[in-house]
This record gives sequence, structure tokens and C-alpha cells, in this order.
Amino acid sequence: MEQESRGRTSRRRRSRDGGDTPQRQTNYRQLRNPFPQMPVFSDDQIAAMHDTALQMLEELGIKVLLPEARKIFANAGARVDESTQMVYLGRDIIAEALSTAPRSITARAATRERDLLLELGSLTFQCGAGAPHATDLERGRRPGSGRDFREFVQIVQHFDVLHLMPPVVEPQDIETNIRHYFTMEAQLTLSDKLPFVFSRGTPQVTESFELLRDFRGLTDDDFQSDPHCYTIINTNSPRVLDTPMAQGLIDFAKHRQLSIVTPFTLMGAMAPITVAGAVTLSHAEALAAIALTQMTNPGAPVMYGTFTSNVDMKSGAPAFGTPEHFKASLAAGQMARLLGLPWRCAGGSAANVNDAQAANESQFALWGCLMAGATTIIHAAGWLEGGLTVSYEKIITDMEVLQMVAEMCAPTAAGPDEIALDAHREVMPSGHFFGCAHTMARYQTEFYQPLVADWSNFGSWTENGSRTASERATDIWKKILRDDVRPPLDEAKVEAMHRDIAKRTAAGGAPPES
Amino acid sequence: MEQESRGRTSRRRRSRDGGDTPQRQTNYRQLRNPFPQMPVFSDDQIAAMHDTALQMLEELGIKVLLPEARKIFANAGARVDESTQMVYLGRDIIAEALSTAPRSITARAATRERDLLLELGSLTFQCGAGAPHATDLERGRRPGSGRDFREFVQIVQHFDVLHLMPPVVEPQDIETNIRHYFTMEAQLTLSDKLPFVFSRGTPQVTESFELLRDFRGLTDDDFQSDPHCYTIINTNSPRVLDTPMAQGLIDFAKHRQLSIVTPFTLMGAMAPITVAGAVTLSHAEALAAIALTQMTNPGAPVMYGTFTSNVDMKSGAPAFGTPEHFKASLAAGQMARLLGLPWRCAGGSAANVNDAQAANESQFALWGCLMAGATTIIHAAGWLEGGLTVSYEKIITDMEVLQMVAEMCAPTAAGPDEIALDAHREVMPSGHFFGCAHTMARYQTEFYQPLVADWSNFGSWTENGSRTASERATDIWKKILRDDVRPPLDEAKVEAMHRDIAKRTAAGGAPPES
Repeated sequence: MEQESRGRTSRRRRSRDGGDTPQRQTNYRQLRNPFPQMPVFSDDQIAAMHDTALQMLEELGIKVLLPEARKIFANAGARVDESTQMVYLGRDIIAEALSTAPRSITARAATRERDLLLELGSLTFQCGAGAPHATDLERGRRPGSGRDFREFVQIVQHFDVLHLMPPVVEPQDIETNIRHYFTMEAQLTLSDKLPFVFSRGTPQVTESFELLRDFRGLTDDDFQSDPHCYTIINTNSPRVLDTPMAQGLIDFAKHRQLSIVTPFTLMGAMAPITVAGAVTLSHAEALAAIALTQMTNPGAPVMYGTFTSNVDMKSGAPAFGTPEHFKASLAAGQMARLLGLPWRCAGGSAANVNDAQAANESQFALWGCLMAGATTIIHAAGWLEGGLTVSYEKIITDMEVLQMVAEMCAPTAAGPDEIALDAHREVMPSGHFFGCAHTMARYQTEFYQPLVADWSNFGSWTENGSRTASERATDIWKKILRDDVRPPLDEAKVEAMHRDIAKRTAAGGAPPES
Repeated sequence: MEQESRGRTSRRRRSRDGGDTPQRQTNYRQLRNPFPQMPVFSDDQIAAMHDTALQMLEELGIKVLLPEARKIFANAGARVDESTQMVYLGRDIIAEALSTAPRSITARAATRERDLLLELGSLTFQCGAGAPHATDLERGRRPGSGRDFREFVQIVQHFDVLHLMPPVVEPQDIETNIRHYFTMEAQLTLSDKLPFVFSRGTPQVTESFELLRDFRGLTDDDFQSDPHCYTIINTNSPRVLDTPMAQGLIDFAKHRQLSIVTPFTLMGAMAPITVAGAVTLSHAEALAAIALTQMTNPGAPVMYGTFTSNVDMKSGAPAFGTPEHFKASLAAGQMARLLGLPWRCAGGSAANVNDAQAANESQFALWGCLMAGATTIIHAAGWLEGGLTVSYEKIITDMEVLQMVAEMCAPTAAGPDEIALDAHREVMPSGHFFGCAHTMARYQTEFYQPLVADWSNFGSWTENGSRTASERATDIWKKILRDDVRPPLDEAKVEAMHRDIAKRTAAGGAPPES
């Protein structure tokens, strides 16, 4: 124990170069998941859960609020009871639908370097999203605004390890009939990543597709050849598919844009208290939603998904990053592999401030998603209060973890040069490798450089103001906004979009449907 | 996205019972590692690293400062140069020694329920240890004292998920010639877990063994039949085995007590900058140290170990919980499996305060150890400043993570009762599982109950003082000390030990050797 402190004599070594050194270059844009996949249940148990989900769809059915969706289900052979809005899906119908769902999807961003390959084995991260509130140490907690929305787009754009552009907060000060113009404009002009489109009725979805298609300069065929945007579809557990969600599935499938289907099921609340029961329910709902996309347009890009965590049974408060959340992620991963589909999983934290609880819950949930083999990990940074707030600082501190995970995706060499017998020969017992040739050739690029971690000793740290990770994170997000680096844009396209939006706004916009 | 907030209407549900509910009972005392083991290198690369380590021991040698140890090495056939204190070990000698190292060790605590099975596949945690400083929010950062040492023993004793009793801080206000009496007395009277003995020369080690043997009421044969205590042996990298460490290996082997061999190697400082190079060096040193135990007493209990992280190449500051640390843990796990020996790995954080950085680094390092398949994960809680300080609060917040990991070790059922078709039948679309029979039968025990996490909503949390996890952790450790729960003790044995210590103290104690 005590002996371990002996090695620390090196810690006060001074900087070997005064200026900036080259940064390690690791590609964070296209990742494959290097972590072994962990089962929580046996194959037989997973098969039984899948079978029970099929039985549920067949016997218990799912309530579908949108008439158009019920009609599509009926046309595919489902038994529909219009008086109760219940749809009963036979397992043959589900099997038929699943057979056309693509196993691999290439989602097109503004540039090919930002395109995303979505399939089992690939790994993408999304920043925490969908929050009504934003918070930061300087401005406090407040309802999400247009300004927050734009700032979050800029912050997400900055980090290569965040692959999809999400709606981090709801811009509540923008009127709802023109909010989709605002969110599209911000995503397209401040970022070159895959944009998100809210499923809030056909008019908004169609307009968003048009803005995107025109801004990217795509024909309709181009636009539909691969998805150029995505949406998230939550079922209303248990067993309800509501109007805007069903409409979104249909609209996205028609235009061959990407739907990520995600029942949001809290064990003990809108799902059974057991992991197996909750994941079975989530699976049944996901199957129905995926089926709707394939009935609408066979081959339409769709991802399987789950977001299953638990509540505190004393208070009903939702929790994230718990053992039950972790296990549910693992079970969902087994289900996704059974289907062979790319899928999304989710992290998160229920903490109210960016403290040790917040960090621990988010990271614990993250490892569940990673070992579950998720293709897309949503809410992987910034989420507080179970998603009611996204924190500017927490995005930054979580980013450190995501970047370190991304470093794990890169291969590590272990040839003779790395085993380094020559270096061992060069350095005598009790000697130091700091100055040896092997180190000198590599010291600028060998290690991951931290984003927000401060490794200085207690004395230096105290002299520098005893600043916590959250305080240091403040400097980082402010600098990102100050630097205001934007992707290259075709100014003519921007102006055309602004004219288009002005015209649509003057015509009254398009209110959301629910 | 926004739709996910709909499920949250349940979060303000009131407590369904006013009184205490039965706690979930999960056995944290005997754990098997449920996580899949992850390689970082190919089998060929691992074989090449092992081969290079053997070549290093054969051609470059290791400096051994203790004459008795050099003699043991020489008697086993090693080439020894007394003028340089260098020992050169042929690969046949290492192979012979490794053949007698036990694959499975049962370490005996005060009760059989606290005994530890140490082998590949079992999982044990140790609190952060060996720190010169202690810190807490109320008393601040200070040199470790006897009071701190005792308090940490009580806190470690409280948590079943901490399996070994370590010397959390150095009790610097206790004179060094009697410090071993103090640390043994505290461990034996305040805890029933496997105690730690410092390797600070034969007199202190022998006296510690005597105190332990007498207090446990063991004959010499009993004492030596299985290990009843453990020590940590750090080599002085690169390639030095110093006097107290070599003496400790010999003394522990002679008495068949447990040595955990751990080269502490920081990449870029006392080890090559590459993961493969650093782990190869660590492996060579561990092989030499393990060999010494087996040459001294074949079959003596010994664990393989590694503690390899990296430094900041700009400042020389050590870092923990980095991608390089993670990869080194994975590589060491591959080495341990090659040998077939139980082994220790280590977590840690370089943060100066219990913030998001501290939580993230410790947990990131932890996952490296878990996926490396470590038998014992050391410094798994409380470590700040790369081990220069142990934080009372960080022990508590890290404990949440360890308990959640321990929950993952328990099997999760997925039979018909858990898949719960009846519950799905009972709850209508848009309904709620909170009150259904399936939930009512399980709500008190289904979920892990958090230790320090606060899942209340922002309003409640604010009304309750906006307290961070560290502040809430303060309440928890203070309550543990206030409750002062002690293991059952034989008062006659305690009095006899006190008389023995008084006599030994009067005789001048035993100074440490270095």
C-alpha cells in the first residue's frame, strides 16, 4: 500500500514543452462496439419472452388511436375492433413485417464523414434530449428556450463522439406552429450531423422533410434512397400507440426516413415490476410499431428500441442507472439480436445536480447499454432529473466518459515496438522511462488527453481556486459557444431556406397534432 | 422525445406505506463476477508479452536488495551477481515456481461468513487504501490519524460489499514502533473481515501474526492451514525488489499467509509508455515476486497483481480511470488467465474533490477491472488524488456503485411468473401496474434500494436543501460511526490482547524496517 506512493515522486515533473503539442487523433465519428455482449437471461428465457410478446399481440392486442394506422394493420391481416380501437396481430403478420425491416441502415448527414452506419455492432451516441428545462451554473434552471436549443446544437456539433443531433431541450418560447421551422433551421445551419424531426403530425413532418430536402439539394428520390433524418417514436405503455406517434411511423416510413421505436417503460409503473415482464411488454409494443412501418412501406428504415428502467416503489419516482435498468438493457439487447435489427438503448440519471450521483448513474446506465450491444445510446450525456433537465455542465463531464469509451474502440498495438524490449534494456533498475527513446517517440500522442479532468495535485488545484469538474465544464461550454465554429454552408441555400421559412410563417405555419 | 415525459406522471405518487418496509436481501459477501471478460490483445500478443517478460528476467534480471532473498533465488538455480544485487531467472525456474502457486485460496476471516474464496471467477472489493491523508466535508483534509484509521475500519466493516479490511489511511500520529499494534487492535476489535498486515520488516510482521493468531485462538498449524491475513507487495518498478517487500514475501510465505503481488507501474514514468510494454514489465516483476514466495515455501498463497495506469506526459501527474488504465487492466487479466492465478487489479481517481470527475474516473477504472476478470479490486472506493487522500464521502458514493455491481452478480429470474402474462392481462391499455397483484406481491423487495442516491423531484430536492450526493454521504458515514455496531467479541480475548500489546509496548515495540 504505502509503497505505491513511491512511484508518485514523478508527479511534480515539470512540463517538457512550453507550447502546444500535437493532439492524439482518434476517429470518434465511426465506432464499432468493442465490448463483449452480456446476456442476462438464457436463450430459452428470451425465446419465451418473445413468444409471450407475440401471444400478447395476438390475444390482448394493442390500442391504436389513429384510424389510418388501424386501416393499415387491418389491410395486413390484423383483427381490428373499431369500437375499442384494439388491434390484434397474429404472429404470422409480425414475422412477415420483420422480414422486410433492414438489418443495416446508412443514415445520411450533410457530409459523408458524418454519415452513420446503423447495424448490430456499430456504436453511436446521442446527447440527452427532450428536456423541458435547461440548466447551467451561470444562468440557473429555466424552461428551455430557443436560445438554449441553438446553444445545445452548437455544443453537440462540437463533439465528434455525439453522432446524432437531438432536440436537447424544448424551445418553449417559440410558438408551436413555427417551432419546427426553428428547430430545423438551427440544426441545418449550426450542424452537419443527422438532424432530428419531431413526429407532431403530418403537416409539420412533411414541411420538415421539405426544408431538409431543399437545403441538402436532394431530389425526392435522393431523399428517400437513404434516411436523411430521424425521429423517436414512444409508445404509450402499456399497449397504446397514440395518434402523433402512429402518424409519425407512417409518415417516416412513407418517405423512407428513420424511425427509432422506443417503448418507454418504467418497471412497477407502466410496465410489470419484473425485468422479464417489462421487457416483454416493451418488446410487444416495439414489434407492433415496427410492423406498422413495414406494412406502410416494406424496407423502410426502422430501429428497434427500449427504454426500460424502474421507479422507486415508495414514491413512484423514476430512477435511472440502477441494476434493474442495466439488466433491462441487457435483456433488450438479447431481443434485438434475436431480431437481428439495429436498436437503441438509453442512459440517464435522476440526480438533480451534476454531482457524484449524476455521474455514477449515467455511467452505470452507459455500461449497461454498451454491454447490451446497443447501436445507438440515447441520453448518453447531460440528463438530470430523469430527463426533465439537460445540464450544460453535465454534457461536458459526460463527454469525458464517452470520449474514453470511444478510445476503447480503437485498436491497441502490441507488436515488438510496443512490448518494447529495447526500452526495457535502455532503462536500468530504479530508472525512469520518461526520457528514453521509446517514450520520446510517442509522448505527444500515446495517451488520451482529458477534456475536463484536472489531474494536478491538491496544492496546485487549491491555488487555482479548488474548482470542481462542473465549474471547469463551464469554461468549456462557454468557449465552444464563443468560438462558434460552424460547418461550411452554401449561403444561397441558407438564404433560400430563410425565405421559405418566412413564407411558411406568413402563411400561418403548421400547428402540431396530438 | 417529449413523449417520454408522459410516463412521468407517476413520479409524484405518494408513499404506499408509512412505516419501514422489508429491505431487499442480496448476499454481497460472496460474489462471482458475472461480466464477460474482454481481451485487449490477441492470444499471440499475450504469449509474446509473456515470453518477453521471461526473456527480461533471464537476460536483464531484477535487482533484489535483500541478501536473504538473493540467497533463496540462488538456491533455486538463479544466477546472482552479488556485486550488483542483480538476479537472473531462467524460464525453467519461473515455470517450476508457478507450478506450485495455488489456483484457489480460501482466506479465513473471523467467521466463516466472512471467509473469502480467491480464484479466477470470484470477485472481491477493497476500499481505497494506503493514503497519507484523510478528508471529509466537516473536518477538511488532514494527515491520516489513528482516529481516522479506526473510523475507516468501522465504515468498511459496515458494508458487506467491501470484502477485505485494508489500511485506509496511515495513522501518522501513532509512533511507528507501535503502529502495527494499533492497526491490528483496531482491525480485530472493530471488524470481523480479513485483516491486513503491513510488510515493514520481520519483527513487525511476526508480532502481527502472533497477535492475530492469539486473538483468533488458533494453533500455529491452524494459522498456517489457510491464510488469516494478507499484505500487498509492490515492486519498485522498473525491476527492483526492495528490502521490506522481499522480506514480506518471504515472511508471509513462510507462515503461509497471503501476499498480493502488485507492481505499481505508471506508463511513461516507471514503465514504458505503451500498454503492452508496461504490462510486460509489470508481469516480469510479478513473476519474480511470485517465484520468491514459492521458492520460500511451495504452495504458499500468493496472488498475481497489477496496477498499471498512465501519467500526464505534460506534467508527470499520475492519472487513473483513463482508457490506458482500462486497457492495461484488460491485458493484465489476460496474463492472469494465462497463469491461471487469482489476481488483483485496481481502480482509483486523480480528482481532488468528490465531484463528477472523481465518480467518473473511479467507475471507469472499475469497469476495466470487472471486464478484466479481477479476483480482487483494490482502491474501489474513496480514493482521491491518486491515492494521496481517502474521502469519507467518496467511500459512500462509490459504495452505491459497488452495491449496484453486486446486485448484477445475483441471478435474475425470467420464468412465467416474471414474464407475467397474467399481469399483462390484468392491466388494460393506458393502465398502471402500480396496484396490480403481480406488483403488490413484489414491491417491497424487487428493486435495489439506493444508499445515497436521491431520486426525489427538483422541487422536493430544493425544499430539502439542495444537498449534493457528498453532503448526503456525510449523514451516512456519521450515522455508521454513531451506531458503532461491532462484531461479537470474546472480551477475555480482547483483554488478553490489550495486555499483550501493553507488554510489547513497554518493551519498546518494534520499529519498521526499510
